[in-house]
Amino acid sequence: MPLNPNASIEITAFRWVPEFAQGVVRDLRARWALEEAGLDYRVRLLGAPRPPEYLKEQPFDQVPILREGEVQIFESGAIVQYIGEKSETLLPRDIAQRFRAIQWTYAALNSVEPAVQQRALLDMFYADQEWAKLRKPSADEFARLKLKRVSDWLGDKPYLEGDRFTIGDLMMITVLRMADRAGLLDATPNLTALVQRGQHRPAFQQALSDQLAAFREHEPEGAAA
Amino acid sequence: MPLNPNASIEITAFRWVPEFAQGVVRDLRARWALEEAGLDYRVRLLGAPRPPEYLKEQPFDQVPILREGEVQIFESGAIVQYIGEKSETLLPRDIAQRFRAIQWTYAALNSVEPAVQQRALLDMFYADQEWAKLRKPSADEFARLKLKRVSDWLGDKPYLEGDRFTIGDLMMITVLRMADRAGLLDATPNLTALVQRGQHRPAFQQALSDQLAAFREHEPEGAAA
Repeated sequence: MPLNPNASIEITAFRWVPEFAQGVVRDLRARWALEEAGLDYRVRLLGAPRPPEYLKEQPFDQVPILREGEVQIFESGAIVQYIGEKSETLLPRDIAQRFRAIQWTYAALNSVEPAVQQRALLDMFYADQEWAKLRKPSADEFARLKLKRVSDWLGDKPYLEGDRFTIGDLMMITVLRMADRAGLLDATPNLTALVQRGQHRPAFQQALSDQLAAFREHEPEGAAA
Repeated sequence: MPLNPNASIEITAFRWVPEFAQGVVRDLRARWALEEAGLDYRVRLLGAPRPPEYLKEQPFDQVPILREGEVQIFESGAIVQYIGEKSETLLPRDIAQRFRAIQWTYAALNSVEPAVQQRALLDMFYADQEWAKLRKPSADEFARLKLKRVSDWLGDKPYLEGDRFTIGDLMMITVLRMADRAGLLDATPNLTALVQRGQHRPAFQQALSDQLAAFREHEPEGAAA
């Protein structure tokens, strides 16, 4: 349980978010990687709206940021890779294997997440808009095509490159969880199984539990009503 | 001029693409990074449709792939980072600076490109569809917000982290070129200037020229009509 107020690594997270976002806010990726690596970290919680100065740390006004000594970085992909470099478990040292893991981190964030998110947001934010209804079939098809390609690649392997869980799997699983919430995994049971495999890891469970605990603690009055 | 048929580094590229895609296909990113690093490379050109076996190398059926010895990777972000590791110019050795550069590579691909691409595709592929007309104002606003955030960050610095051009600038500039083509940079002159600064680099010009030369050489009969 690496949450430690005196840790040298600090990440930012939101104090509270509405229920639909709970369990998928991106600090989960950093927390999960830190748990897998067995590294202590502390959390700087941010209210809403964020103070305007936060844009000088994170120009897109998002979480997480990671700080450790001289290092200060945003973008969950870069953060997970930074954590990976401290853990041979998450990011192999062998150059060929190392870049296969990094490649899947980018693939999750650039080849899969945009298609999944575009489709998921139609229901989450635009459900009553005419354009969203008309757009849904093609957005659905595009997201499913990307997921099918990941599914075909995975086949019956436990993880994307075989037996070993890396930062690439970690990142892809966080994206597949969003696809799962949007009902997009029904045609790819091996991706559903991959999500389950990830979610059963003790490091994932600790990370999720710690993200949710902060939300419970800071729930605004009446938010659960 | 690092194009060299005997080079140890190989990338894939398309033999030919329609005019709207010429100059922005993603092998340009790999070519540009290789030129900046002064590394020789050879090109494996792929026709359309790609042979089905290509999916075993690149599950999303895209370019580029990079091969060198045991290393075989896809995703332009991972490839540019791999090239960066061979060149202190492109990817600083100092850990704090190194991860700032990597962070911007991820930011270009995950925080900016999806918003820009979503907006650009409305005109490129869906211009005559009702949903695209209705969607355009909000997609435009979202893309411009992301670009504004990059613009505010950049201020009057030459590159994203100051005077030094890194893989993060390289990747961001390739995304900003798409935004420029879609007419999205009119409110952010410092981003237009950043694109110009990138495009004036001799390495960029060589990379672009080599991508376009392959298209000219393999132009199908009647394609220019």
